[in-house]
Amino acid sequence: MDDIVKTLARISIFKNTPPPLLQNIAKQAHASKHKKGKVLFIHGDKAQNYYIIKNGHVKLFRETLDGTQATIDVLTKGDIFAHTLVLEEETYPYSAEIVQPGTIISLPLSDLREAIHTHNDLAVAMLQTVAHQYHQRERELEHRSTQTTSQRIGCFLLRQFQNQQNDSLAINLPYDKMLLAARLGMQPETFSRALSKLKKETGIRTEGTWIYLETLDKLSSYACPACSGRFPCADLAQKRKE
Amino acid sequence: MDDIVKTLARISIFKNTPPPLLQNIAKQAHASKHKKGKVLFIHGDKAQNYYIIKNGHVKLFRETLDGTQATIDVLTKGDIFAHTLVLEEETYPYSAEIVQPGTIISLPLSDLREAIHTHNDLAVAMLQTVAHQYHQRERELEHRSTQTTSQRIGCFLLRQFQNQQNDSLAINLPYDKMLLAARLGMQPETFSRALSKLKKETGIRTEGTWIYLETLDKLSSYACPACSGRFPCADLAQKRKE
Repeated sequence: MDDIVKTLARISIFKNTPPPLLQNIAKQAHASKHKKGKVLFIHGDKAQNYYIIKNGHVKLFRETLDGTQATIDVLTKGDIFAHTLVLEEETYPYSAEIVQPGTIISLPLSDLREAIHTHNDLAVAMLQTVAHQYHQRERELEHRSTQTTSQRIGCFLLRQFQNQQNDSLAINLPYDKMLLAARLGMQPETFSRALSKLKKETGIRTEGTWIYLETLDKLSSYACPACSGRFPCADLAQKRKE
Repeated sequence: MDDIVKTLARISIFKNTPPPLLQNIAKQAHASKHKKGKVLFIHGDKAQNYYIIKNGHVKLFRETLDGTQATIDVLTKGDIFAHTLVLEEETYPYSAEIVQPGTIISLPLSDLREAIHTHNDLAVAMLQTVAHQYHQRERELEHRSTQTTSQRIGCFLLRQFQNQQNDSLAINLPYDKMLLAARLGMQPETFSRALSKLKKETGIRTEGTWIYLETLDKLSSYACPACSGRFPCADLAQKRKE
């Protein structure tokens, strides 16, 4: 129980939530260990819960009528999902599948709905989180228009680099390359070609899920000219400050 | 003044705002007529205002370091923008330019920030609006992976059709084709090729900004199999109900 409160307290939407309310919210939480391949819910199911990843990885995806799978996101430790449905939708707009085993905390959306109506700090913190996520999606959409596939991989690596706690030029990908390809909206063949090009242009090397950079400058001067931002990424710098 | 209150009352974030608060908010509003080409603010400017379009069209865009322009959105009458910056950013993450002359209402973000901290209904309504916009961006990102360029144009037309107040099979585009190409993240040549293909496959005809459909079914069975939703679009149906 205390363990769940601690996990919740680290989530951005709960950052200003008073401890008694957080303890109340935690009372309704269920933590479950899941194996790889477990489907938490399916696109179109009635939306009853939102989720926090204690550890492991979760893929959010949709399937089109003609059977193509579109990966919406691949989430990791400390991420929250389906919270955006609190006021908005009656059914899940995507499916969620465990892609690396781990513990997932589920909480009822109805409790969150009640809490944001009675605790304005929580409503404001949620607004801030969702607005931030909205701007991230806008940036991704921009990149789909302006960046080549190689630049998009380079951009992902640079953002991983900035999320590291150290300045090492080695990055361990959070998940395997096929999942990364899906996350970036690329077919596996497209991804492989784009990665080969990126290696040639920037001197990065790969070994399994490890990526070794020669210099940061080489990668940023390759990927960042096709972005409207500057390196380092302002949104990540802001997050680090918080 | 009363006129501004009426315009504000139609915006989703203010739908539950009590009249006295709305009148207070309206006191700080400035309505200005603008010519085509007028730039309201530039990416990187200190974010001080949010905006509501009384009439006319506004393009939101960014420029990358290498000079490519990425159109984020093209907004029309009754749309709101830069409200997502209320808690999030210190500078505008895009530029805004008038692309069809009209009257734009500007309001201070600082007032909105104060109001959401003191009025829970407003914070909740904003959260609902921004979450809805977030899901729209997610769907757009999905479509960039799953739809062909012709299907993407078809999807845009189907959504315009659903936004019409009547069941006519003629749609007047809200803006010209070049702006539409930019809005859909396509180069003009790509857009022209994709539109020609769409005409051939679905029998639609164009005349200036007018589009004539043969049947709705033909267009939806062409574009919608590459979407995870069903036609008619659930989010637009929900909006009509409100």
